[in-house]
This record gives sequence, C-alpha cells and structure tokens, in this order.
Amino acid sequence: MNNNDISYTLQALAEHLDARLIGDGARQVRALATLGDAGPDDIAFLANRAYLKYLPGTRAGAVLLHPSHADECPVACLTLDNPYLGYARLSRLFDPLAARFEAGVHESAIVSPSARIGENVQIGPQAVIEAGVVIERDVVVGPGCVVGADSVIGEGSRLHANATVAHGVMIGKRTILHSGCVIGGDGFGFAHDGSRWHKIAQLGGVVLGDDVEVGSCSSIDRGALGDTLIGNDVKIDSQVQIAHNVQIGDHSALAGCVGIAGSTRVGRHCMLGGGVGLSGHLTLCDGVQVTGMSLVSHSIHEPGVYSSGAGGTMPNSQWRKNAVRFKQLDALAKRLSRLEKRRDEKPDVERQRDEKYKDDS
Amino acid sequence: MNNNDISYTLQALAEHLDARLIGDGARQVRALATLGDAGPDDIAFLANRAYLKYLPGTRAGAVLLHPSHADECPVACLTLDNPYLGYARLSRLFDPLAARFEAGVHESAIVSPSARIGENVQIGPQAVIEAGVVIERDVVVGPGCVVGADSVIGEGSRLHANATVAHGVMIGKRTILHSGCVIGGDGFGFAHDGSRWHKIAQLGGVVLGDDVEVGSCSSIDRGALGDTLIGNDVKIDSQVQIAHNVQIGDHSALAGCVGIAGSTRVGRHCMLGGGVGLSGHLTLCDGVQVTGMSLVSHSIHEPGVYSSGAGGTMPNSQWRKNAVRFKQLDALAKRLSRLEKRRDEKPDVERQRDEKYKDDS
Amino acid sequence: MNNNDISYTLQALAEHLDARLIGDGARQVRALATLGDAGPDDIAFLANRAYLKYLPGTRAGAVLLHPSHADECPVACLTLDNPYLGYARLSRLFDPLAARFEAGVHESAIVSPSARIGENVQIGPQAVIEAGVVIERDVVVGPGCVVGADSVIGEGSRLHANATVAHGVMIGKRTILHSGCVIGGDGFGFAHDGSRWHKIAQLGGVVLGDDVEVGSCSSIDRGALGDTLIGNDVKIDSQVQIAHNVQIGDHSALAGCVGIAGSTRVGRHCMLGGGVGLSGHLTLCDGVQVTGMSLVSHSIHEPGVYSSGAGGTMPNSQWRKNAVRFKQLDALAKRLSRLEKRRDEKPDVERQRDEKYKDDS
Repeated sequence: MNNNDISYTLQALAEHLDARLIGDGARQVRALATLGDAGPDDIAFLANRAYLKYLPGTRAGAVLLHPSHADECPVACLTLDNPYLGYARLSRLFDPLAARFEAGVHESAIVSPSARIGENVQIGPQAVIEAGVVIERDVVVGPGCVVGADSVIGEGSRLHANATVAHGVMIGKRTILHSGCVIGGDGFGFAHDGSRWHKIAQLGGVVLGDDVEVGSCSSIDRGALGDTLIGNDVKIDSQVQIAHNVQIGDHSALAGCVGIAGSTRVGRHCMLGGGVGLSGHLTLCDGVQVTGMSLVSHSIHEPGVYSSGAGGTMPNSQWRKNAVRFKQLDALAKRLSRLEKRRDEKPDVERQRDEKYKDDS
Repeated sequence: MNNNDISYTLQALAEHLDARLIGDGARQVRALATLGDAGPDDIAFLANRAYLKYLPGTRAGAVLLHPSHADECPVACLTLDNPYLGYARLSRLFDPLAARFEAGVHESAIVSPSARIGENVQIGPQAVIEAGVVIERDVVVGPGCVVGADSVIGEGSRLHANATVAHGVMIGKRTILHSGCVIGGDGFGFAHDGSRWHKIAQLGGVVLGDDVEVGSCSSIDRGALGDTLIGNDVKIDSQVQIAHNVQIGDHSALAGCVGIAGSTRVGRHCMLGGGVGLSGHLTLCDGVQVTGMSLVSHSIHEPGVYSSGAGGTMPNSQWRKNAVRFKQLDALAKRLSRLEKRRDEKPDVERQRDEKYKDDS
Repeated sequence: MNNNDISYTLQALAEHLDARLIGDGARQVRALATLGDAGPDDIAFLANRAYLKYLPGTRAGAVLLHPSHADECPVACLTLDNPYLGYARLSRLFDPLAARFEAGVHESAIVSPSARIGENVQIGPQAVIEAGVVIERDVVVGPGCVVGADSVIGEGSRLHANATVAHGVMIGKRTILHSGCVIGGDGFGFAHDGSRWHKIAQLGGVVLGDDVEVGSCSSIDRGALGDTLIGNDVKIDSQVQIAHNVQIGDHSALAGCVGIAGSTRVGRHCMLGGGVGLSGHLTLCDGVQVTGMSLVSHSIHEPGVYSSGAGGTMPNSQWRKNAVRFKQLDALAKRLSRLEKRRDEKPDVERQRDEKYKDDS
C-alpha cells in the first residue's frame, strides 16, 4: 500500500504522542514500518526486546522507542514509556482509510425516508438503510451494507463493505464492524414436540457498546427475549460466533474462531484465545484468560489463565499410540491403584516373613 | 425492541394454543417476557423448574405454565402440557418481522426476465434474482440477497439480508436462511498431479428440505457430482460448515461452529453440539448426539451420546503438567504393564524361595 | 443440475485428456457421473479401487480409467495413468458456469471512473468497484461483490456473489473467491494501556498468488505493517480464518474451519485438516500435514504427519471416566514412578536378605 499523500514532521508526531524528540524535528516521515524494513522516509518502532538487534542497523528516518534504548538508536528518535501504545496511536495517523472519507449518501444507496441520518455521514454504494434506522453523526456505512429496521448506529462508527445489521440492533459510538459480519441474526432456539422442532421467534435484540470491534465474517445473534449484550471496548476477531443472550463485559478480547453458546456471561477484561468454545449458561468472572482451542464447560470464578485439551502436536505415529491409551485411561488409573494397594499390603507380609525368619535364625 | 402495535387478549391466545385459561379472557397482553422481567402488559411462561421461584412474585399480566403449577400462579394463567412448546408458538405471534412484511419487488432489485416470481413475494432492495430462478409464493428475499441461476426458493421461505444462494440450488418450503450464509459454494475438490492442484468442478447442487433453518455466516457446499442433501426440519446454527455431498437426515440439529467433511451422512434426529467436527465419508446412524467440540473420526452405528477430547478447563499451571504427560501416555501404560507383570511374577519367585527355605528349615 | 447444452464426443474428450480411446469415438456424452449413477449419456470414471465393484455393471456411455482396468470395462473407455486427474480436467468441461459467462458491466453495478477494467470482463448486478481498482482481462465479478480502492484482480479470476475484497489487496491470476469470503479485513491488533485497548491500524495489505481458491465465508486479514501473503496454487476451504501477516507457501491446502493466528508461516505443499488451529508466530516447514482439529502450538521443522488431541469419540459415559482421569494424569504418572522406584529398590533389599539367608544356610 502506497499512501503517498501522508506525511508528518517528527515534531508533529512527538507532539501528537507527547513523546520526547531526539533529532531533527523538521524531518518528514511518510509511512510506518518495522525496524528491519524501514527506509529513510519511514518511522519505525521498538516495542519488543526481540527486535533490539535490528536497532543498530536500522535505515529508518526515526524510531519510536523506550527512553532506555535512546542511546543505542543510530537515527532520530521519539521516546515514550509505552512504545507499543505509541505505535498504535501512530498507526492511525498513517491509515489511508481515514483520508478517503467523503461525506454523503451514494446515489445507488437505498435509504428509507423514515431513517434519520446524522451530519457528516458517508453511506456507500448499494447500501440499504431500512425504516426507522438512526445513523448518528460521523458514521461510515460501506458499500453493500444493510442496516435493518429501527437499528441505531452510534456516532463515529464504521461498517465495512457487506456488513449486515439486522433490525432492532443498538450499536454504540466509534464501533467498527468488518465485512461479512452479521449482528442480530436469530438465536438458535427451538422447542421439540417429541417428533419435530418448533421455532422460537427471537424477540430480543443485540446491544453493542462503544469502541467495540467485530471481525470479518463474525456473527452475534439476537436474544430470545432479552438482548445479547456486548460491553464497551470489547474486541472480537474474525469468524467468531456469539449466541443469543450472551453477555461480554467491558474490555474483553475474543480471538478468531471463538464460539460462545447461549446465555453465557463473560466478565470484564477477559481474553479468549483462538478457537475457544464456551458452553451455554456459564459465568466467567472478570480477568479470566483461556488459552487457544480450550473447551470451557463449567463456570470459572477465579481470575487466571485456564486451559483444556491434550496439548500440542506430535508426529502422528506417536500420537496414535497415546490417543489409544486415552480411551484406557480410567482402566489404567484403576490398575495403578490396585498395584499400589497390593504394594502397600506387602510390607506387612514381608515383615511377618522376615520376623518368621528372624525367629528361625 | 418495542412492538407497540402487537396486542392479543388472553382469550385469543388460549384459543391459539388450545390452552386452558384461568382468569380474565378480555385482558390484553402486548409482549412476551421472562417471569422475572414481565410487567402487567406482558405474558410470561414457566417451562423449567429452575424458574419456579420467580412465579409467586411475578408482575406478569398472565403466565403460560403446566397445569400442576396453576395453583401457585398469582395472576391469570394459560395451562398446557408442554409450556415450552407453547412459548415457541406464542413467540411467533409477537415477532415484529411478521408484521413488517410488504409484498412487492423493490425498484432497486435486479430480477431476471426469465425468473418466475410467485404471488405475495417480497424482494428487497439491491437483491439479485438470476436467470431461470423460481421464487414460490409467500417468499421474502431480503436486501442484498443473491439467488443464482436456476435455483428454486420454496413457498413461504425467507432469505435474510445478504444471504447468498448459488446456481442450481433447491430450497424447500418455510425454510429460513440467515444473513451472510452461503448455500451452494463449490465443494473443496482438487486432484494432485504430483506437483500442483487441479480443480474438480463441482457439478452437483444443494437440496434443502422444508422447514430448514441455516444460521448467520454458515456455508453449505454444492456436491461434486450428486447433490449435498439437507433433510426436512434440519436446524443449522451460525458459523457451520457443511462440505460437498454431505447428507443430513430429517429433524437433526447442528449447533454453532460445527464442521462436517465431505460425503459424511448424518442420520435423522441427530444433535451435534457446538464446534463438533465430523471427518469425511462417515455414517452416523439416527439418534446420535455428540457433545461440544468433539471430533468424530469413525462411523457411529448405535444411537446415544458420544464425546471426545480431554475434558474441561483447569488452571493453566495444572493443565501443563497433565498435557506433558499425555505425550508420555503410551510409555506410562507400558511401564504400568511391566510393573504388573513383575508383580505377578513375584509370587512364584517368592514361593520358590519360600519353599526353598521351607526345605532348609 | 441439467446442462442440456453440453455435449462432447468421446474422440474429443480423448484428445482433450490425451487419453487412449477404446470404443466408438463418435459417441456423445452429455454429463459426468459416478460409476453407480451413470446412464448411457454420461461418462463415468474409476479412480479408486473401492468403486471397482461397480465397473462390471455400469450403465455409463463410457468410463475413464487406468489402462489396467480396461479389460474389465463393459463399455467404451478412455484410459489414462492418472484417472483422478483426468476426472478433474473432464469436470471443468461440464461446468455450466463456464457456459454462462457474458462479458459486460451490469447497469446496476457501480464502477469508479478511476477503475481500470480489462477486456472480456463481466461485472454483475449491484457490484461495486471502488477508485483506483484494476480488473484485468477475463475476470468475473459476481453480483453484490465489492472490490475496495486500489485493489487488483488478476487475469481470469472469478469473484462469486457477495465476495468482498477490501482496499489495497492484490489478487493473482485465475484465482477464485467464493461467496461471503472477505479478503483484507483488519487484522486483530490492539495495544493495551493498562485499562483499555487502542486500535493498531492495519496498514499492510493481502497478496494472493495465482490459482488460489478461497472458500465460502472464509476470511484473510490484512497485515499490520507488511502484507499477509498467500502463495500460488494455495487452496483454502470454507470458514477458514487467516490472521494478519500469515504466510502460506505455494501448493498448500487448508480444509474447512482452519484458523491460523498472526504472523505464522506455513511452508509449501502443506496440508491442514479441518478445524486445525495454528498458534501465532510459528513456522511450519514444507511438507507438513496436520490431522483434523489438531492444535499446533510449536513450530514444526520436519516434514511429516502431525496430530494432537485426545483421539476419537466414545460413548459419553465411558468418556467421562477417562476425561476425569486426564486431570489426574500428572499425579498418576508420579504415583507410577514412585511405585517403580520402590520396586527397583526391592532387589537390593531382597538381595541382601537372600545373601543373609545364604550365609545362614
């Protein structure tokens, strides 16, 4: 990606980040790059000691780093206590999408006359805004997006191309929905009459807080009666499934391919690794971390790191032998107990025998 | 969600459900709610003993429940033998989507002149109906949906916004496709020539039965030669992947994130928990239930509940110790056997020795 | 699917495949079918010995098979050393989609004046082509697709309905994107300030090679700084998630529901089974195969087949007993070691005793 129109002086960046500048403040940088890849027009950053080895040889125009590394930096630098956070803030300055914003409703978009569209809103080609929708100010609705009846998109939010918001969904401010995601599809609810299924209409909605992000092709289902609730600053990666009436606390992060079954409540500041599955009707307290591809089938009441599964890969030939044993695990444990019991009984027998021999001797 | 235009008398609801009414039949209710949340304008239900504690204090206008709980109900009630099924039927009366239906083809939709559109059909904005498609009566095609050439959408079905049906797909009656789902994408078929892949065109289609539901962002791939077949009353949750030439029997239910590999046949009345994976070319007989995140790598010929995996989460520090041992499991089992063998040999040795000493003595 | 307009003589097919024809070259076939299903107008194939039993009774007009089976074939045949590869090549001749191609930009499509559209390109209804896009010759962009600003779609590629390509994505030649897939959504990158998340703008792009296929509802995220790189001839099934800055080597194949975390590098000629998860920042060398639903949490440096997990399903009652033991596995192993140690100490004790008795005797 070339973004040739973006350029900042180091002085301007230092002020933006509230960083200390060492070097020529008038110098211009035009892009952000890694220490290894950066050239003279780029600003790089050092946020992980593993990359320190690239610092002495960097060709970057400037480097954002911790004050403790300033002495080792061969070029201009901006120093900050949390350079990774500085990188995050810097990255947004170099985002070409921000520059491309153009307010207005594309002529091919279909906007219901009863929808209320705020100021400075961009609605892309082929988008559909249904009746009763409220689009607050500074929102971007990408091409091909659909916003269903009576939904609200909060100030400054962005829907990327082909995102879908169903009816009656409330989306907070500065929230980002990526392409292909679906907010407010029906929860999976059916009653069985002994021979077949009867659909339970999903009458609740979905409420997303402020500063939420939902990744590509992720789905958040609407509640059966009450709403599915996603707190503020919740970050959801791609291919995630959140079932009806789930609640996710503020500041939690869900990595790709996570699946959460109905009515489960995840606390604040939780982190779920890729492919984690949570069973339904559980409660995870604040501060729970679950490692990748774990199945959580019971509530968790203490913060900490949790895992399940049989561990990492091994060569298939070795794995087969171990996996076969898993089916025997209970039997193995019982055999071990039996052996221990017999072993523990031995000393007495031996003692008696020894004593007998003692007598003999 | 406010649905202020929906209102029923208790008398009308009792007749609809064929329930016994105890209380004032002229009383109006305007929404469905849980026992705990319901107010005087709402009807609630009691279908799970866990919620019985909320019955004495409910503020609901009326409660749907089993006759055995009628005496404990402080307000009007409708009694039924299967109140959960009653709740399902009631829920659909309060669904605002039903009320919003408006027949007609939106002016922005693109409908091929060779498509046949039945009576009382709604085709939303920006939808595309390709050549040779048949849309039967009472169908709703949501905004942004695409129906590919020669496909058929059966009577009373509904495609939610941005659902995609490829060419040559047959969809039964009263079937629901949620947003972002894809019916009839190519199956994953390639021949290898020793150095690279050659695509196998997927010439089969997909046939969905009546009363099927497919969740948000789920995909059902078209067959390689024959069709991928989904029976009647099959319920498929969100983020599910069904590969080419899979067959799913009537009345089966697949929870979120299930993945089924090619040519596997799932029987009738099966239930697959969230995240379950089925290998290819398997057969699961009728009445098989598989618990969440299990991998099924062999056919199952007896109905019942099946599971795999290493069980639920534990603290990561404890888990690491156990997971390391999994890699040693076969070795552990062999060591146990060796120990047992030596233990079993012992008596003879000891016996001989004992006998020897007996001689000595 | 009836494709009544497609018909070939056996002679023409033999020439196309460079196969030896035994039988009447003027005979016409109109479709491809399995040995068991084929009728007189169909050509069937035998590529797997498991289906050899159907050969004597086949009603096919002709059969594609290995020369060693020609004698057993009751009808005309085409012989080839790799009949499965022959089937792949044949299948594409019978694909009705190829026949349906019609060059041109649909009047409802929105194409930016700054986009460059090659010769013989089809752009479907409701599609959106943003500013600066390059669509090379012989490309098909399906209905409802969006191609973001400055992206390039290489010669002969096909985007199926409702596929989404974000801005700044490079797509090679003859590449196929299925419906609902998203190429170039933001990678999942945030910096934490101790209390909340700060978005890291994803400034890299995605580069897909030639002859790549991406399945329905799959997502490939854009890089944080550099690009996410998918090599040539990489085949990706449905519901796959590929995170930012992942690299996949040429000729690798990823089955459905695979998830790959950020910055992981997969070699050439790798095969990942359904539901496999790869942790972030790993390296898999060339020629690695991972079986279904395995979690790979460490780099793999030797080609071969790898697995993880606790093995296949068993009845739930049996599984529960084993899964409980998994939580005790480390304790069981320690108990076993203790037992072995005590057992190993025995001989000395016994030897001493034996010797003592020897002395006694």
